[in-house]
Amino acid sequence: MIERIYTHDITPEDDGEEVAVAGWAHEIRDLGGITFIVVRDREGQIQATFKEDRNEELFNKAQEVGKEDLVHIKGEVTETDQAPGNRELVPKSLEIVGEAESPLPMDISKDIDSDLSTRLDNRFIDLRTPEVHAIFSLRSHLVQSMEEWFDEEGYIDIETPTIAKMGAEGGAELFPVIYYDQEAFLSQSPQLYKQMLMAAGFDKVYKTGTAFRAEEFATSRHVSEISMFDVELAFIEDQHDVMDVVEESLRYTLKETKERADDDLEVLDIDLEIPEDDFPRIKFEEARRILREEYDHSPEDEGDLDTEGEQLLGEHFIEQGHPAVFIVGYPGEKFYYGEAREEDEYQSRRFDMLYKGLELVSGGQREHDPDRLMRKVEEEGIDPEDISFYLESFKFGMPPHGGYGLGLDRLVKQVAELDNIKEAILFPRTPDRLEP
Amino acid sequence: MIERIYTHDITPEDDGEEVAVAGWAHEIRDLGGITFIVVRDREGQIQATFKEDRNEELFNKAQEVGKEDLVHIKGEVTETDQAPGNRELVPKSLEIVGEAESPLPMDISKDIDSDLSTRLDNRFIDLRTPEVHAIFSLRSHLVQSMEEWFDEEGYIDIETPTIAKMGAEGGAELFPVIYYDQEAFLSQSPQLYKQMLMAAGFDKVYKTGTAFRAEEFATSRHVSEISMFDVELAFIEDQHDVMDVVEESLRYTLKETKERADDDLEVLDIDLEIPEDDFPRIKFEEARRILREEYDHSPEDEGDLDTEGEQLLGEHFIEQGHPAVFIVGYPGEKFYYGEAREEDEYQSRRFDMLYKGLELVSGGQREHDPDRLMRKVEEEGIDPEDISFYLESFKFGMPPHGGYGLGLDRLVKQVAELDNIKEAILFPRTPDRLEP
Repeated sequence: MIERIYTHDITPEDDGEEVAVAGWAHEIRDLGGITFIVVRDREGQIQATFKEDRNEELFNKAQEVGKEDLVHIKGEVTETDQAPGNRELVPKSLEIVGEAESPLPMDISKDIDSDLSTRLDNRFIDLRTPEVHAIFSLRSHLVQSMEEWFDEEGYIDIETPTIAKMGAEGGAELFPVIYYDQEAFLSQSPQLYKQMLMAAGFDKVYKTGTAFRAEEFATSRHVSEISMFDVELAFIEDQHDVMDVVEESLRYTLKETKERADDDLEVLDIDLEIPEDDFPRIKFEEARRILREEYDHSPEDEGDLDTEGEQLLGEHFIEQGHPAVFIVGYPGEKFYYGEAREEDEYQSRRFDMLYKGLELVSGGQREHDPDRLMRKVEEEGIDPEDISFYLESFKFGMPPHGGYGLGLDRLVKQVAELDNIKEAILFPRTPDRLEP
Repeated sequence: MIERIYTHDITPEDDGEEVAVAGWAHEIRDLGGITFIVVRDREGQIQATFKEDRNEELFNKAQEVGKEDLVHIKGEVTETDQAPGNRELVPKSLEIVGEAESPLPMDISKDIDSDLSTRLDNRFIDLRTPEVHAIFSLRSHLVQSMEEWFDEEGYIDIETPTIAKMGAEGGAELFPVIYYDQEAFLSQSPQLYKQMLMAAGFDKVYKTGTAFRAEEFATSRHVSEISMFDVELAFIEDQHDVMDVVEESLRYTLKETKERADDDLEVLDIDLEIPEDDFPRIKFEEARRILREEYDHSPEDEGDLDTEGEQLLGEHFIEQGHPAVFIVGYPGEKFYYGEAREEDEYQSRRFDMLYKGLELVSGGQREHDPDRLMRKVEEEGIDPEDISFYLESFKFGMPPHGGYGLGLDRLVKQVAELDNIKEAILFPRTPDRLEP
């Protein structure tokens, strides 16, 4: 490896020592006889100070460095009150490893003020911005922490197919694929596969994967390729066991991320709140009542809460100290959701979880009884032949089970307090964006 | 949650205690007045013994239990020398949670003797077989351990798009997708995106994802959806730095898996060898020489080693105590691979790694110089316009970098000593298999 240390690893203990750094020329200031070059690497920045009267050759070389050139600098760590972090390098050598063309496609050392479309067009440059980089370092920690919780709880990390004969959610919003001589589709959800694994005795599974939705409209919450974290577990009593998993794993994820990604959160100026209290679990009807009575808002579709409703509910519960809230008992369920039992206080065994006013999780208990399931499939007008491979798996001892899908892009958006979900994705896909 | 413990958690300390288990009736033996039901859960098996003269009602209920029915049994843990593990349950209650239709689509408590196609058709039943289940528990540990190494080394866990305008490897073997009103393709590799992230200063990244290859032929090593572990790192000196990462991470992965999945390895009867010695790094020409001189085998394509060649080389190095070997300096490189420098002893900066005679890893140093890269793109007959979003990222300070892709399905196949790669995948996709 090329000799270097990360800039944030330079500490007062290194004073007087020679270190090497490698990174991009983030800022160059010329004060006549003195040139400051601020080098930016993945983890931070450090200033190197070139003085004409100290080393003329190096000083002259520094004049050749342009903005965003990639440089390798060796130098002595020196205390200073003239630079952020109170450390600078007194350079012993300077090498331009890769030149940057001028002008840059967009400016990056200022605040992120370019419009999002320009930023996404020039994503490799945009991603150099410390704030933008921090989003993806944060994202990596969120995903790692979440997977860790499930690993430690004995969940099996699974993979399910992307290419499927039909969608789990019906025919709409599917991307067709030409699969050899057949028509197939990109998977909207691992739903049917997760459930088959319950029949196979896998017991507890999770999957970090991609789901595809051919939604023609563009909003700040929708993209065509979605990163989903999917969970399924067997031997539950009801949907509350599933909600317990959502709650505990999310609390762990946020707690660990707050610790591990503290520098990213600092760059993004986020004070991440850990929801220590139990997440409220309110009935769907109660959610509608709050919206109607307290906000004079009645979502048009009686079986749903609309975007505005979710935002208002989010505000309502944040005011009460609850960033996360479960809405339990959604009507209008898919065939695979468990029906309410006579003794149930909820209309169905389906729930959503709102996190800071955005639907982050959808889940519930599933139907595990083969007869009830068959009736629901027929009621929904699905030809049982089309999903016979799935229906078969209920006939040989299917345990009661449930699960959920959590939108990872949405989690990042909410934690990093981003305006648009596309900012949470390295290379997002939307109806009008297929590159980069 | 439904009250239960895993069968493998029942220990001598539980003798005399009441426990509950939930699982499938793996074996039922009727000895007239005594019925043994062996209950199988994810983690093992335990026998419950129903005696007519001890509890007639329970005994009668036990007669109703059919093979693979899902049962919930509470009982007292009792020492016995009549059952595996020397423990059995003296039942206090028995509930049939889900009945299994008879006959089963295939038999599962015997050795895996059904043909693979039948097994995959009835995958949810096949996956109940302890040996088959163990493959996927093992797989989960392999993936978790590998990701852990990279997490601890500070790699950023990234996601890159599945749907792309064109393939990284050229036009062949691509699955077309209808993306709104455009034609697009399923990604063969995150290659171009990983590299752009090096230009963005991400420095060290990894991705666990899916790659798609529309290969018409079916072999024991090929499927249409491939799980890949992709890595890219910047500021390397040459391809040896990349090989170091392959070597250290694989050693860690195997070591941790051997510990964590010890029960799975036992079920599979695998004595997993950890390659403690440095992996040999031999020149491509040397590999050809060994094949020619020691095995009288000359792969037809002079720029490659064929399957038989890889197997022979695998045997050759296993005999010398090396399950893993690098073949360095492959000719006939793609545009993104680094060319040999004058001082190089290798023909190119590309390498493959064979693990037990199968190509598991392909990687190398990449070309980071924008002019040399452009020349190679043109030499390969690629229209630079088609990948301009990628080529742009080399013009603003691209660090020297390299990386690799590791086939996760192949890793599982080799570690679990499977004949066919499809056995390493829950729901494989091949030219003639789109379901389940």
